Amino acid sequence: MVNVAVLGYGTVGSGVVEIINKNNALISKRVGKEIQVKYVLDLREFEGDPVQKILTHNFEDIKNDKDVQIVVETMGGLHPAYEFVKAALEEGKNVCTSNKALVEAYGPELIALAKEKNVNFLFEASVGGGIPIIRPLRDCLAPEEVLEISGILNGTTNYILTEMTDNGSKFDDVLKDAQDKGYAEKDPTADVCGHDAARKIAILTSLAYGKSVAFEDVYTEGITEISDKDIVYAKNLKKKIKITGTARKNGDKVSIHVNPVLLSKAHPLYNIDGVYNAIMVRGNMVDDVVFTGQGAGKLPTASAVVSDVIEAAKFIDSNINIEWSEEKLSLEAFDDTEWQYFVRVQGNASDLSDSIKATFGDVSFQDAGFNEEVAFVTPKIAENKFNELINSFKLINKIRLS
Amino acid sequence: MVNVAVLGYGTVGSGVVEIINKNNALISKRVGKEIQVKYVLDLREFEGDPVQKILTHNFEDIKNDKDVQIVVETMGGLHPAYEFVKAALEEGKNVCTSNKALVEAYGPELIALAKEKNVNFLFEASVGGGIPIIRPLRDCLAPEEVLEISGILNGTTNYILTEMTDNGSKFDDVLKDAQDKGYAEKDPTADVCGHDAARKIAILTSLAYGKSVAFEDVYTEGITEISDKDIVYAKNLKKKIKITGTARKNGDKVSIHVNPVLLSKAHPLYNIDGVYNAIMVRGNMVDDVVFTGQGAGKLPTASAVVSDVIEAAKFIDSNINIEWSEEKLSLEAFDDTEWQYFVRVQGNASDLSDSIKATFGDVSFQDAGFNEEVAFVTPKIAENKFNELINSFKLINKIRLS
Repeated sequence: MVNVAVLGYGTVGSGVVEIINKNNALISKRVGKEIQVKYVLDLREFEGDPVQKILTHNFEDIKNDKDVQIVVETMGGLHPAYEFVKAALEEGKNVCTSNKALVEAYGPELIALAKEKNVNFLFEASVGGGIPIIRPLRDCLAPEEVLEISGILNGTTNYILTEMTDNGSKFDDVLKDAQDKGYAEKDPTADVCGHDAARKIAILTSLAYGKSVAFEDVYTEGITEISDKDIVYAKNLKKKIKITGTARKNGDKVSIHVNPVLLSKAHPLYNIDGVYNAIMVRGNMVDDVVFTGQGAGKLPTASAVVSDVIEAAKFIDSNINIEWSEEKLSLEAFDDTEWQYFVRVQGNASDLSDSIKATFGDVSFQDAGFNEEVAFVTPKIAENKFNELINSFKLINKIRLS
Repeated sequence: MVNVAVLGYGTVGSGVVEIINKNNALISKRVGKEIQVKYVLDLREFEGDPVQKILTHNFEDIKNDKDVQIVVETMGGLHPAYEFVKAALEEGKNVCTSNKALVEAYGPELIALAKEKNVNFLFEASVGGGIPIIRPLRDCLAPEEVLEISGILNGTTNYILTEMTDNGSKFDDVLKDAQDKGYAEKDPTADVCGHDAARKIAILTSLAYGKSVAFEDVYTEGITEISDKDIVYAKNLKKKIKITGTARKNGDKVSIHVNPVLLSKAHPLYNIDGVYNAIMVRGNMVDDVVFTGQGAGKLPTASAVVSDVIEAAKFIDSNINIEWSEEKLSLEAFDDTEWQYFVRVQGNASDLSDSIKATFGDVSFQDAGFNEEVAFVTPKIAENKFNELINSFKLINKIRLS
């Protein structure tokens, strides 16, 4: 018998209990041992819910029960999640978490502690919800030097951009609609400003290179400046606007950023629409591999947590090596990254086209029929150089090509 | 030090040696031990190639060397691959293979033998080339009851269908072109008739359900009957013709088949074009997850083999449980599967439309401007019923909708 304790009976936590119960026969068969949820920790009561029988309000009950071998942390937030996870690992219990903030902030410390205690700290659900990505990156792509990871890592923003593209809607209207439908949070900042995606690409990049990237060091730009006019231009360019989190190896440094990009049809992420997420990994041997699925949602995310529970149960007495040290990964300054830019500036073509060409070189002008603006795509140019050159113009918006 | 012996220095085998050498530092770091190729077995000589130094013509050298812990089988074919693999496992060596014929024919026996000897028999490269699918199915989707697996499992046929779709070319011309470019074999039977895909879906289905499916029991139909006219109709229907291998749970049985299908734009495999392969797994909790990449090619396939070598090296003294027994999976007869059919029959609409409606019910007629034929899409109907009803007409071709 393997006993599991679930910390936090919210959306994901209740999904974990549901999956372990509903698919119990096949899960227990795959583990080779019976699996059961022995405790659920939550401050609330759940009158009438069968969970009430295994509910506790006191983490000490779980910590002190030697029969609990696996702790699932689905509380979210940093505190007390960190303290509980650390205490569980110190007691020699395995921990599986869906908490990306925890993993991003304390990953290497908790991985090292798990190793010391010969147990496991697993976090498949922290990136990409139900999409298998952490474990494939660790195991299946282990022969690879990773050249690039690029992902559509946030369902809310992909839904908004897809609606703007397919229906010509405006950002604010789609956001409100997404909030009404429950796809977007009441406070959508973490999603629309790119912070959620920044945490996820920081985790993936740390795992791919075995060294730490803090999400504060990820250059991050959200989608709040994307207008319906940008969408029209994108269509004329036969491209789509997506927000991707990307890490790209450049010599011995890695550039890492979350920002809106214009993707051409040939890009592996071009067709990922709506609430779907996808992560492309480019290895030096295998070339491009893409993982697609639902990046959020109760049961998909809980399923990823349960896959960790199964792995922890199978390797209950041994640590699976995860390469992610406290050492900082050497990053390329965002100022040094090179892009082609799609640019809109205030003014008229007759006045500006000569100076635009003189400034940026071989640009390609874009006309979408809008008055009092000039749009163009630049040749490849470094970010700091672009920022310097664009100063002579009244910038409306710019979107990088990827 | 972990010593590897590679059986067969063909395309994949030489790729395995290349990856282990080129990415040696990071592979050894991920394993936690130095990895080296100690032997390559091949009947040929390779004068001037550094492999000559580690070349042997005699399998006994490998079998009898106690220092060889991992044997890579990339010879292909059933014999002597089977005898060598069995002998290696009996000697307590781990085996990693890319040989789908071997896995399909002897999988459960070799998995059981590996378990008995407390070593591993791994075969990530046998399906989907460089696409991680065997291990994610085993580990990441372990919480799931699999409702459906559907894959574009053969690059040659996907390339042919994509060229026919994008350029309006005829089957024979594209096949010849693909052969000239080296994308298709000189004898393309296994690809174009669907046998290659049938072996792959048989392996995936056996793993998903833990019981055996022989590829002879997979209903298999190739793409040789697909004409440029079918492609025109598909476009009018806003669908694409693809050949998929699919296993679908229906009550306590599983239907399994490889055949051309018409996919609508919303289908997860609709956008998988050219030589790309993709596998969609639908679980009862996670919903759809899709794995995309290059399904063939020297380095992608070799990378998958090396991912197995790394796993075998990490778990050198323990068996990883793989559920796949000799017991036969209970299959639904293909005659009982239900489909909508796109149908073309000889004749004129004025003569036939009444009898078509009387026979098939609420059909939707399709006009692509071709003379002396009538095309329509039927409601959902069982295969055996369709075969009975279509007898009153002169069938040109039919393609199932999926």
